[in-house]
Amino acid sequence: MKNGGSPDAAAVEEYFRALQDRLCDALESLDGGKKFTEQKWRHRAGAGGGRARLLSGGTVLEKAGVNFSAISGDSLPTAASARRPELQGRAFRALGVSLVVHPRNPFVPAAHLNVRFFVAREKPGDEKTTAWWFGGGFDLTPVYGFAEDARHWHRTARAACKDFGGDCHARCKAECDRYFYLRHRDEMRGVGGIFFDDWNRGGFTDSFAFCRSVGDHFLPAYLPIARRRMDTPWGGRERAFQSHRRGRYAEFNLVYDRGTLFGLQSGGRAEFILMSLPPRAEWRGDFRPQADSAEENLARDFLQPRDWAE
Amino acid sequence: MKNGGSPDAAAVEEYFRALQDRLCDALESLDGGKKFTEQKWRHRAGAGGGRARLLSGGTVLEKAGVNFSAISGDSLPTAASARRPELQGRAFRALGVSLVVHPRNPFVPAAHLNVRFFVAREKPGDEKTTAWWFGGGFDLTPVYGFAEDARHWHRTARAACKDFGGDCHARCKAECDRYFYLRHRDEMRGVGGIFFDDWNRGGFTDSFAFCRSVGDHFLPAYLPIARRRMDTPWGGRERAFQSHRRGRYAEFNLVYDRGTLFGLQSGGRAEFILMSLPPRAEWRGDFRPQADSAEENLARDFLQPRDWAE
Repeated sequence: MKNGGSPDAAAVEEYFRALQDRLCDALESLDGGKKFTEQKWRHRAGAGGGRARLLSGGTVLEKAGVNFSAISGDSLPTAASARRPELQGRAFRALGVSLVVHPRNPFVPAAHLNVRFFVAREKPGDEKTTAWWFGGGFDLTPVYGFAEDARHWHRTARAACKDFGGDCHARCKAECDRYFYLRHRDEMRGVGGIFFDDWNRGGFTDSFAFCRSVGDHFLPAYLPIARRRMDTPWGGRERAFQSHRRGRYAEFNLVYDRGTLFGLQSGGRAEFILMSLPPRAEWRGDFRPQADSAEENLARDFLQPRDWAE
Repeated sequence: MKNGGSPDAAAVEEYFRALQDRLCDALESLDGGKKFTEQKWRHRAGAGGGRARLLSGGTVLEKAGVNFSAISGDSLPTAASARRPELQGRAFRALGVSLVVHPRNPFVPAAHLNVRFFVAREKPGDEKTTAWWFGGGFDLTPVYGFAEDARHWHRTARAACKDFGGDCHARCKAECDRYFYLRHRDEMRGVGGIFFDDWNRGGFTDSFAFCRSVGDHFLPAYLPIARRRMDTPWGGRERAFQSHRRGRYAEFNLVYDRGTLFGLQSGGRAEFILMSLPPRAEWRGDFRPQADSAEENLARDFLQPRDWAE
């Protein structure tokens, strides 16, 4: 077994950089017009930086961000590991790719993917006390819900998990439902997907393979849904509801999202971290959907945990 | 001295209810068209509730919320008192009026006012261990900065403080600059104003008088500025910049604002607590102001602490 299970950050970085390229190519093809622009950035404190890529104002993609980052720091922030507070304050290295897609057509759902790899050391260079783990997942946020889309999304998520233990999908699906939850609204951000954190199951080789499987299953999960919905006609009513729902998306990311908090806490650049925010959001304060409309039923039918993969 | 300095929640409630009425009347006059609609709500846990008033879609006021609330609970949330963590978990009563104005014209600044009164008891009915304090303030958030407006705003704020100790204005001004600060952007939310918390200086009678002075000075501070700017012509460029700046406003309220966190933590109703959010916000991700424009210079000239009252 290559690397015999010891963590190989260089291999992860190589995969992450190539994944960013692949995701950007596929999204440019989907949009069919606009291209990504790249900004390289250096980390404010610590070392490292990233390649932030933004596609803005496309016909299909109103805003899409695909960021790669590789940073090191002297002190792991609190948001990095929810379950292992003992690692706080250690020297660390963090690699990650984050993707957020906000399509223009309200019938095309927003999508999010993240894969990340952390190494935390007691002292710089002290390998004996090194802890490492993967995290990530993907989740889907429809404005208008379609059972067909939710089923395809979750079946592809299940396929991403199938070689990694009998409970892998159930566990990652449940974690996703728990994580993307707006407590103050008592609703999920979207229809969920899979989410994992503090993952080092079966050693490095297996864990890295799982991380790659999640990264590789995103496009097969998303592109068929986007292509199926992108030509659906829409007007002011659908656009207004999209802006309203994007308000909830912004609420989640700013109030709850650990990745956002980690980025801000670790001294990352706000303009890139907050690239995940929707291009436009509305809080009119008096939004009232028509009785028994798709808008009114969204939360009831799609924003509660449900077993879509069956 | 009436009440000899012992806390009189009934008198505070009477003042707060009347203040809400006065503020709504003045804002309806300013708008000249739309009226406030009221929703009464009951607190989910605990006791009490509030009167949430919203004016939406006016000619001058795109969105204005003026809320009165009076709630009681068994356990004071962490966000209620930053300086006295020992009060956490006590039975409490909280009264407050909150106002947020988001004008339509980008040359009219957004404004915020809050006044609040807390009583925390060791045990229900145990007056000996009662702690009470006032909090509040008002602050101004321009999209386009005008020194004339900032001076008028801060001079009126200074006038609100003048009978309450020689250091009152300087202290409340500095607290405001510290509080309305977006660390991740390294800029203030706006030009500031005054802010106070945990205030029981000179006993109840004096503290209540200070709270009333702040409440009473809001309209003289804001109305002249709104009237001066509300007929300034504006177009797509100004509207786009307003939406961009409103994104920062939403970031502050969702990431940092203690009143928002207190509301969500104390089981308040999200739709009313988040009435403070702007009607529309944009995060385009690639906003670049023209060199040396009013848009580019806003942060440098207006969003850093400055002594405007001189």
